Amino acid sequence: MDIRGELELRIKTIDEALEKRLPKLENERAEIYDAMRYSLFAGGKRLRPMLMWEACGACGGSWEDVEPFACALEMIHTYSLIHDDLPAMDNDDLRRGLPTNHIKFGEAIAILAGDALLNKAFEIISSERYEYPERALKAIAVLAESSGTEGMIGGQVLDLESENRQISPEELKHIHRLKTGALIRAACIIGGIMAGADKSEINALDIYAENLGIAFQIQDDILDVTGSEEELGKPIGSDKESGKNTYVSLYGIEKAKQLMKEYSENAKEAVSALGDGAGFLTVLTEYLVNRRK
Amino acid sequence: MDIRGELELRIKTIDEALEKRLPKLENERAEIYDAMRYSLFAGGKRLRPMLMWEACGACGGSWEDVEPFACALEMIHTYSLIHDDLPAMDNDDLRRGLPTNHIKFGEAIAILAGDALLNKAFEIISSERYEYPERALKAIAVLAESSGTEGMIGGQVLDLESENRQISPEELKHIHRLKTGALIRAACIIGGIMAGADKSEINALDIYAENLGIAFQIQDDILDVTGSEEELGKPIGSDKESGKNTYVSLYGIEKAKQLMKEYSENAKEAVSALGDGAGFLTVLTEYLVNRRK
Repeated sequence: MDIRGELELRIKTIDEALEKRLPKLENERAEIYDAMRYSLFAGGKRLRPMLMWEACGACGGSWEDVEPFACALEMIHTYSLIHDDLPAMDNDDLRRGLPTNHIKFGEAIAILAGDALLNKAFEIISSERYEYPERALKAIAVLAESSGTEGMIGGQVLDLESENRQISPEELKHIHRLKTGALIRAACIIGGIMAGADKSEINALDIYAENLGIAFQIQDDILDVTGSEEELGKPIGSDKESGKNTYVSLYGIEKAKQLMKEYSENAKEAVSALGDGAGFLTVLTEYLVNRRK
Repeated sequence: MDIRGELELRIKTIDEALEKRLPKLENERAEIYDAMRYSLFAGGKRLRPMLMWEACGACGGSWEDVEPFACALEMIHTYSLIHDDLPAMDNDDLRRGLPTNHIKFGEAIAILAGDALLNKAFEIISSERYEYPERALKAIAVLAESSGTEGMIGGQVLDLESENRQISPEELKHIHRLKTGALIRAACIIGGIMAGADKSEINALDIYAENLGIAFQIQDDILDVTGSEEELGKPIGSDKESGKNTYVSLYGIEKAKQLMKEYSENAKEAVSALGDGAGFLTVLTEYLVNRRK
């Protein structure tokens, strides 16, 4: 399988959907749309929409079943990056090799562009007409819970609180489970919900997502040490410099690599229960833990 | 009618609902909940939840029909104030006589508390079990549209862009229609939707809200000039100092008062079509345009 080609095909479909959902405007909303679009189309990997799509496919659904949710989830992911980069937060000037949103548009517009992307996510999924409205309501609830205080934002707060102090491996895992894991889990579970998956299928997706999320995070931490600035689009070693706790700082690079392998194996095992339809989820896992950026 | 007594009764019910929806926590989420609660319980007038409740009542519904939406709307209103007060935005240190959220909790937590309140709003309304799910989905869509780029955030952006330049009366009206009017309109229309109102009832609520929103904003602008710092809990004349366009700066105080009266009369006339059930909406209008804070 030409995995890069397969990924690019999917990214193209996802980008086209995002483009339709957040088009370039020439009216009075041009400025805020420009700022939202700047970060939304800054070269993200579209991992979360892709996972949602594949999870939906593994349970018998199609891209059309999840398209609004996939766009919404990518917008929520993007808003969190914009706000994370702000001077009062991580104070980052570069993201994916480009000036961060507040460097490009100023802090006030960056704050509002983040707010607007979060809001737009819920606008999109609530204004759609669904064949199964009760599935949609459930999926909206999963998305909202995963991105708020009980999920991503909760993790961001714990992450802030843990900076510049040593934390335990359990704490680190817990923070990541919320900060990055919650949206990855939401991607997979919403994919299942919108396909009408049964309890055991949702459960398999849940275990898959949990393990994939951790493996993905470990790889992120490893790349911050072993990657190249050119490939990553941001300075190498920035985690260490900002006093961040990472899998590498806690375990060392070799043990971190071993852990990543274990979690990715767990992930692949979990989805094998879903049968042939889940094949690409397995391939995707391999790809993600071998990525260079 | 003892209007103050009536208002206090309603505020008590609304506050109790908000307290249940966002309780004080003692776990790892204590800090972000504290920051969210600090601004949510900082003595707001609960105008929007009250309008939603009364609009629902005017169309035959009850408090229970709108309770989740009323809480959600107040949370969205509160998040917008937290982000508006940030140094990069209006840079306000005081709000309702208290230190603003970022002064109290620091900028990073204030940004996240705002994000979390917006997110919590959608969490609440999407995880509720409804007797009429299709009404709920419609109401979620109205709320999302009113608070995002096509509503409140759109108004905030135009407001930012218009600072320190002279704008026309039409522009001012348009900015306020979005920035403050959109949520007031959402309050009334969602009240109608959740009561199962028909098209003509929704239309009456729409016209009511449109006019009330403008009257309310004019009164806000008048109070910034004629109010007392003690009553308002913020410095007098701050609009002028920050180069804001207001109804008073554009029309002068006498003409502004006259306009306020006209819009409030229009509002009252619009709801008179709803009959006796809308009586309190009329009383509320009177009260709002005669308020001192």
